[in-house]
Amino acid sequence: MKATIERATLLKSLGHVQSVVERRNTIPILSNVLIEASEGGGIRLMATDLDLQINETVEANVQQAGATTVSAHTLFDIARKLPEGAQVELTASEGKMQVVAGRARFNLATLPRDDFPVIAEGDLPCAFELPAATLRQIVDKTRFAISTEETRYYLNGIFIHVSDEAQPVLKAAATDGHRLARVTVPRPEGAAGMPDVIIPRKCVAELRKLLDEVDGTVQISLSESKIRFGLGNAVLTSKLIDGTFPDYSRVIPTANDKLLKIDPKSFMEGVDRVATIASEKTRAVKLALDRDKITLSVTSPENGTAAEEVPGDYNAAGFEIGFNARYLLDILGQIEGDTVEVHLADAAAPTLLRENDKAPALYVLMPMRV
Amino acid sequence: MKATIERATLLKSLGHVQSVVERRNTIPILSNVLIEASEGGGIRLMATDLDLQINETVEANVQQAGATTVSAHTLFDIARKLPEGAQVELTASEGKMQVVAGRARFNLATLPRDDFPVIAEGDLPCAFELPAATLRQIVDKTRFAISTEETRYYLNGIFIHVSDEAQPVLKAAATDGHRLARVTVPRPEGAAGMPDVIIPRKCVAELRKLLDEVDGTVQISLSESKIRFGLGNAVLTSKLIDGTFPDYSRVIPTANDKLLKIDPKSFMEGVDRVATIASEKTRAVKLALDRDKITLSVTSPENGTAAEEVPGDYNAAGFEIGFNARYLLDILGQIEGDTVEVHLADAAAPTLLRENDKAPALYVLMPMRV
Repeated sequence: MKATIERATLLKSLGHVQSVVERRNTIPILSNVLIEASEGGGIRLMATDLDLQINETVEANVQQAGATTVSAHTLFDIARKLPEGAQVELTASEGKMQVVAGRARFNLATLPRDDFPVIAEGDLPCAFELPAATLRQIVDKTRFAISTEETRYYLNGIFIHVSDEAQPVLKAAATDGHRLARVTVPRPEGAAGMPDVIIPRKCVAELRKLLDEVDGTVQISLSESKIRFGLGNAVLTSKLIDGTFPDYSRVIPTANDKLLKIDPKSFMEGVDRVATIASEKTRAVKLALDRDKITLSVTSPENGTAAEEVPGDYNAAGFEIGFNARYLLDILGQIEGDTVEVHLADAAAPTLLRENDKAPALYVLMPMRV
Repeated sequence: MKATIERATLLKSLGHVQSVVERRNTIPILSNVLIEASEGGGIRLMATDLDLQINETVEANVQQAGATTVSAHTLFDIARKLPEGAQVELTASEGKMQVVAGRARFNLATLPRDDFPVIAEGDLPCAFELPAATLRQIVDKTRFAISTEETRYYLNGIFIHVSDEAQPVLKAAATDGHRLARVTVPRPEGAAGMPDVIIPRKCVAELRKLLDEVDGTVQISLSESKIRFGLGNAVLTSKLIDGTFPDYSRVIPTANDKLLKIDPKSFMEGVDRVATIASEKTRAVKLALDRDKITLSVTSPENGTAAEEVPGDYNAAGFEIGFNARYLLDILGQIEGDTVEVHLADAAAPTLLRENDKAPALYVLMPMRV
């Protein structure tokens, strides 16, 4: 293999693929990136952790086709430190890969290309497209609610399914049992009959990074066990979580009769301020609701008390309810308009938050006893 | 106590004092900041870890003089989250301090002012001034060499002493046994006869932060056991390290006969690049010196090899020498001009680095076997 590539191109692409590579690997080749130069076809870089695989094709001047694998983090660090504008010459032969740029020469240990594991995609019968902006919205408005509890592995991702309502829709949901986030978008063509899937957290994270750099549309293909995202020059392939996502629609309250309308920004700032003195463990903030008078408060045995009145629009019976401040802030941070609707029932019932009934996203938050 | 202070003023000052407060304290009052309001005299904030103490006086509208202590980190977090431009009202009474700003009210637990430990400065007979810029230079060019080995506690700071040479000078030195950094400046008036002192690492760090915000001169007073820095509104008082700094002048080579003159920037970039593949543990880089040909190289059993030629000016006999890349980069990062002089003897002897023989700073680096 022999190819010349611009340092900036190599660096950008390695930046994408190296973050799939785990820092510690018991299987040595999983630390490596596969570099494949095709006659006249540029270079393909590929990395995997056996569950998630990325490959990206970049422009390069290929003098001799071939392939090898070298440490992804080492090659990334080298590319980072090469001078701007450098032309990088990659030459693989006899168990080594030589990297030459300017006066610098590196001879890197390699592992055979044939040992590099590739995720067998199998058949991906369902294929559709989503605008990158829609996919960004789906990810941003749900990922914070993904559970990190490994015992409930079926909650460690974003659940995607289609449904026929007034109109055919595609829904994305994530929950950790304390809060739920759901985004509903029009069902894209080709997604009808698609199997329910749970996209793992790490795939979501890598996808989100790549979405920062694409406009236009993303190609999605999936089966019951794998999903593939085509984003410009990059292809991300992931195993899906093999589990059953709970029937979350049951926890979305439909009959909450008390409505608070409030500016999410001042609500958020108030919660953030009073939560300063909350103990790290509970992070509980109390909302006292009265006619058009909303009082946030926190009492901490160690630190003292904090209270703040925030302006809001509330006309139902007064009562008090507690929430985890962190969870409430996560949700409020995703509200884009200048009003959030908080639909409440009582101090023990799930609370519904959304911008309004037309908004694609809705959130459910379990209260805390305070 | 009752006083009103601008949020920006409070925040800036708390930013200074809270970093002296350790995150975990077995003595509860050490988590607190002392707040002292004087009739017509503004507010004094003070924090301590028993070895280092900071106090800062800031403008405030004092309605009632008095003093109390509250959690420094909590008050800092509150000040951070208050809206810009807010007026903050501090009221202390009956074991509580109330903080009111806009619609937010906090009632913070306090500890009695009389329990707050104050470092007894005693007599500080030696007093002099240094321009803030000179003190910044002293700190920046030496602190990286401070030892972190706690067993050699007498190396855990910057050693300052005066000396009569062709001209009276003040010298600052730090070493960890592998490298030594020394800065020499003209002896300020009042420093003659000053005792040798070792300023602890934490004091150095806090001093350096404060130096970013002062121009003009810094007042320094010291005895054999304490040092005080006056910087604008802030006063930093520290215990000195009670130990004997080794006679470091013996390790500064005077007869190294091989001189390499090289651009520190390209030298640094080359070292940084080849060190990419060095193992985390040794970080050894080899210099092969030949007439006007300097080759940097690293060999790593896991990763492979790296080599780079850097342009330099060298006319003595060729030989090879190894250095810890991290240490070499630390030193090169402090060289300001476009040439560094590297005075070498042989592969086992301490190497001297400096910009030139007029430069206030010099560095000694022990070689490594490679």
